[in-house]
Amino acid sequence: MQRPSSELIRLPLLALLALTLLAGCSRGQPAAVYQHATIDALMTGVYDGNLRCDDLLAHGDFGIGTFDALDGEMVVLDGVVHQVRFDGSVHPVAGAVTTPFATVCRFHPDQACALPAGTDFPALEQLVNARQGRPNLFCALRVHGRFATMKTRSVPRQARPYPPLAEVAKGQAVFTMQEVSGTIVGFRCPAFVKGVNVPGYHLHFLSDDRRQGGHILAFTLAEGGAELMTLSALHLDLPAGSGGFQGADLGQDRSADLHRIESDRK
Amino acid sequence: MQRPSSELIRLPLLALLALTLLAGCSRGQPAAVYQHATIDALMTGVYDGNLRCDDLLAHGDFGIGTFDALDGEMVVLDGVVHQVRFDGSVHPVAGAVTTPFATVCRFHPDQACALPAGTDFPALEQLVNARQGRPNLFCALRVHGRFATMKTRSVPRQARPYPPLAEVAKGQAVFTMQEVSGTIVGFRCPAFVKGVNVPGYHLHFLSDDRRQGGHILAFTLAEGGAELMTLSALHLDLPAGSGGFQGADLGQDRSADLHRIESDRK
Repeated sequence: MQRPSSELIRLPLLALLALTLLAGCSRGQPAAVYQHATIDALMTGVYDGNLRCDDLLAHGDFGIGTFDALDGEMVVLDGVVHQVRFDGSVHPVAGAVTTPFATVCRFHPDQACALPAGTDFPALEQLVNARQGRPNLFCALRVHGRFATMKTRSVPRQARPYPPLAEVAKGQAVFTMQEVSGTIVGFRCPAFVKGVNVPGYHLHFLSDDRRQGGHILAFTLAEGGAELMTLSALHLDLPAGSGGFQGADLGQDRSADLHRIESDRK
Repeated sequence: MQRPSSELIRLPLLALLALTLLAGCSRGQPAAVYQHATIDALMTGVYDGNLRCDDLLAHGDFGIGTFDALDGEMVVLDGVVHQVRFDGSVHPVAGAVTTPFATVCRFHPDQACALPAGTDFPALEQLVNARQGRPNLFCALRVHGRFATMKTRSVPRQARPYPPLAEVAKGQAVFTMQEVSGTIVGFRCPAFVKGVNVPGYHLHFLSDDRRQGGHILAFTLAEGGAELMTLSALHLDLPAGSGGFQGADLGQDRSADLHRIESDRK
């Protein structure tokens, strides 16, 4: 089983690599993660969207985030923005819908590998760390496969005054899927992004039938492969208008809260 | 004294504002700070330069940094890179000289003000904080004037194996100037850049005769004015090649060391 699926991944990868070289080198710019706003602003309850999804797509076709009023989990795959709502439903999103926090890139993988059956979240982290070997750079990560189990969450749309994310997460909806085919979309960020983005792995899921998804808490892969893209630049855009971001207290260390919220992988 | 110098600043500012609108809005991009590598990498002793100064200037005409092997303090003013060496001498730098850490922008101020005689470092911080009022965005800061006192430092060129910056700073050279005319060049970064850049104010100095300068520890202004530019984007480029950056331990909190090194304003 290993060799055929590995080759299936390698052939399109060569084409992708050629495209990457053409696309990325045209202006000599390093491959960049594009990020709108900061994770700590979201932590403090800055949920008002201030970037349209069509403007987000101008910066990347692949990524994760959330929506205005914290209305669910965002999965950007193949240039389409998907919303995984609190009720578990999944919808493509109109360009005018806004986001308070999102991270995207133009996904052109530079390596790919088959993954052993039974790979879970910690095993995937280990494998990617070993293969990519650049902990101080960014890594975009796409895993497509059949999952024996997939456990995700989403959050309910909030009303003002917005509570902090740690409060909202206590009421999150958890979705447990079995035998589901789909794609993991996400990033590994270097440790020094603390306060700006999520250090380590932050992964969302979208099923092949586009009917299930969310922020990943845990999974077990039955069969599939990973594609990785190393990125050595971060383009961080901050909300410049008046609004919650300007008044947020972003000088605190919110790592403990963040870890509890993001990586509740029971 | 106040009114004439304030007006002198305001007139060229209007022209600058017009240019800013023309330059900045041509592609609808927010004004960005461009940064090469991270402050914490520098803290750990990653001093090998990996960005040429002429490439740095492609991203901005104004800013601060250091040089390959930590060979002094960098002041970028009006598109010229100046090096303030450990012996206090100041030199324009060739394009092929490299930097391990630098922060620049295209400086187009959006506001200006006269500063009261006697303004010192803490008073300048207070005044800029009050005028700019956006602690979660970046602010580039240029102060030109006559300084009753100006106290700066530079650091000696290092040899491998590189010691951490906290060790190097113990042997820094301190320069005390009196009645010197020149320009303060620097940035105020938001608190959440911790680990990536210097939170708060990081200012370097260059005299009008280009013969003195350095990393500012303290000053007292006799007469002059400030120009401010609010920036709502950060473009962070990381060294992608093999080298010290890839192996640096960037997961530690180095705030205490950084504060001691950067703001030793005795």
